[in-house]
Amino acid sequence: MRIGAIEAGGTKFICGIGNEQGIIEERVSFPTEHPDRTIGNVLDYFKDKSIDAMGIGSFGPLNIDKNSPLYGYVTTTPKPGWENYPFLGMLSKFFDIPFGWDTDVNAAAYGEATWGAAQGLDSCVYYTVGTGVGIGIYSEGNLVHGLVHPEGGHVLTRRHHADDFAGTCPYHGDCLEGMAAGPAIEGRWKVKGSELPAVHPAWEMEAFYIGQSVSNTILMLSPKKVILGGGVMHQKQLFPLIRSEVSKNLNRYVNADEVLGAMDEYIVPPGLGDNAGLCGALALGLRALSERS
Amino acid sequence: MRIGAIEAGGTKFICGIGNEQGIIEERVSFPTEHPDRTIGNVLDYFKDKSIDAMGIGSFGPLNIDKNSPLYGYVTTTPKPGWENYPFLGMLSKFFDIPFGWDTDVNAAAYGEATWGAAQGLDSCVYYTVGTGVGIGIYSEGNLVHGLVHPEGGHVLTRRHHADDFAGTCPYHGDCLEGMAAGPAIEGRWKVKGSELPAVHPAWEMEAFYIGQSVSNTILMLSPKKVILGGGVMHQKQLFPLIRSEVSKNLNRYVNADEVLGAMDEYIVPPGLGDNAGLCGALALGLRALSERS
Repeated sequence: MRIGAIEAGGTKFICGIGNEQGIIEERVSFPTEHPDRTIGNVLDYFKDKSIDAMGIGSFGPLNIDKNSPLYGYVTTTPKPGWENYPFLGMLSKFFDIPFGWDTDVNAAAYGEATWGAAQGLDSCVYYTVGTGVGIGIYSEGNLVHGLVHPEGGHVLTRRHHADDFAGTCPYHGDCLEGMAAGPAIEGRWKVKGSELPAVHPAWEMEAFYIGQSVSNTILMLSPKKVILGGGVMHQKQLFPLIRSEVSKNLNRYVNADEVLGAMDEYIVPPGLGDNAGLCGALALGLRALSERS
Repeated sequence: MRIGAIEAGGTKFICGIGNEQGIIEERVSFPTEHPDRTIGNVLDYFKDKSIDAMGIGSFGPLNIDKNSPLYGYVTTTPKPGWENYPFLGMLSKFFDIPFGWDTDVNAAAYGEATWGAAQGLDSCVYYTVGTGVGIGIYSEGNLVHGLVHPEGGHVLTRRHHADDFAGTCPYHGDCLEGMAAGPAIEGRWKVKGSELPAVHPAWEMEAFYIGQSVSNTILMLSPKKVILGGGVMHQKQLFPLIRSEVSKNLNRYVNADEVLGAMDEYIVPPGLGDNAGLCGALALGLRALSERS
């Protein structure tokens, strides 16, 4: 089986070919530009690959409602050319194969549930903390879509007592993304997170915000695994700090061994590492193929 | 069809008989005492009713994991006699019928999705705001259980700028329940909510907390309907105040007509009124019957 996979990010596109074991056999990457150019690159890459199905996890907001005439569209993004753009339709016009289509974070959650840290579980939550914050939710064996799709990166949070940073979110100011995404770290400390030392008050503050949101997510959804990915989470010192915040916040209220005793295995990095998104797209493609047959 | 239904609350039990149209044909109610007495009353009520199935929506925490040996137990409650009590097992010993079993708030969410305000929708969130705060979640056509079950009433919230109330939650102090449940209103204003006038700063503050949580729930889950029930929500003046808070918090970020334009029909009281819980238990019983046959 040869499955096409696209991890369509706001900054770059990764396209690859994988198989039913979740192995990515080849891949390419190019910057996200005007869709005429970017989708042209995608079509060029896949045109001679003889793929059986394709899965796409895309930056959003998206229309992922199968009953909508706008299913497969990127919707209200300010990114030039992408607003109300029929992403899926531009591909399905050229390839008569089953397509899987979902948000980038839902794809990553699904990849992790299929081959990664949540393999075999019927629920997990996947965070990406990078240029923005996104949350994908897999619950009771389904990806959560709902009315539009979750936008959990924008939840309102309590402020850290020592933080007077205004927040970077143009909509909400000091929501989670506004306080904890990469640009917030850089805005607050005047240096990129990747240039800060591993021991620095920035990480305690970062863990405060992410830990607060993870605590609330555990209370709201009781996921079987919490997976934290994205560029900011390459700072591995964040994991113990976040677990400590969650433990403090929940205060032994959630009575499950996973939460009370084994948090090192409950709040974890992606099992697929930086391949979570692309493998997730692959898993979406495989699922689309199995649903058609 | 005759289906038994139990809405097992921390203060009182309501037992009834209903049919497949969601009509409750008869009911009784008695206080929640030691389980020897309360379950005795339940057995007495149902013993000659010739019911075909039974559904139970119970106060918790509960074990609702069908693969666990403790499925059907009430778990860590401080309520005398109910800790680690095999609620479901005590009934299934006497009635050889299919049983549905879930949390009280999940039952209410399911009742609303079956016959109430979310009828025909594949997702909704049900809040009860009363002695405590509980949140039931129906998502992609499934009730959300996860690792234990959601405990969304305990999410951490931002404080209202004019509020110095410490909060009533023994675990978290000023979590949502600690700031917005009935005892918090009474603790803050030194009078029961039901005795406060409809125009009073208490309601603006209450709407601040509930609206904040509803905003975050919309961002996290994108539900197709948000249903607010429970004793505190009998104060109908809260609805426009809460909608206004949500609108302010989301700041036009969630691009759906339901959220931007028709919030009167999006954030609503239970369609089943105070029957949401009992009808939900009925719906759980019906589902258990259909799953067996």
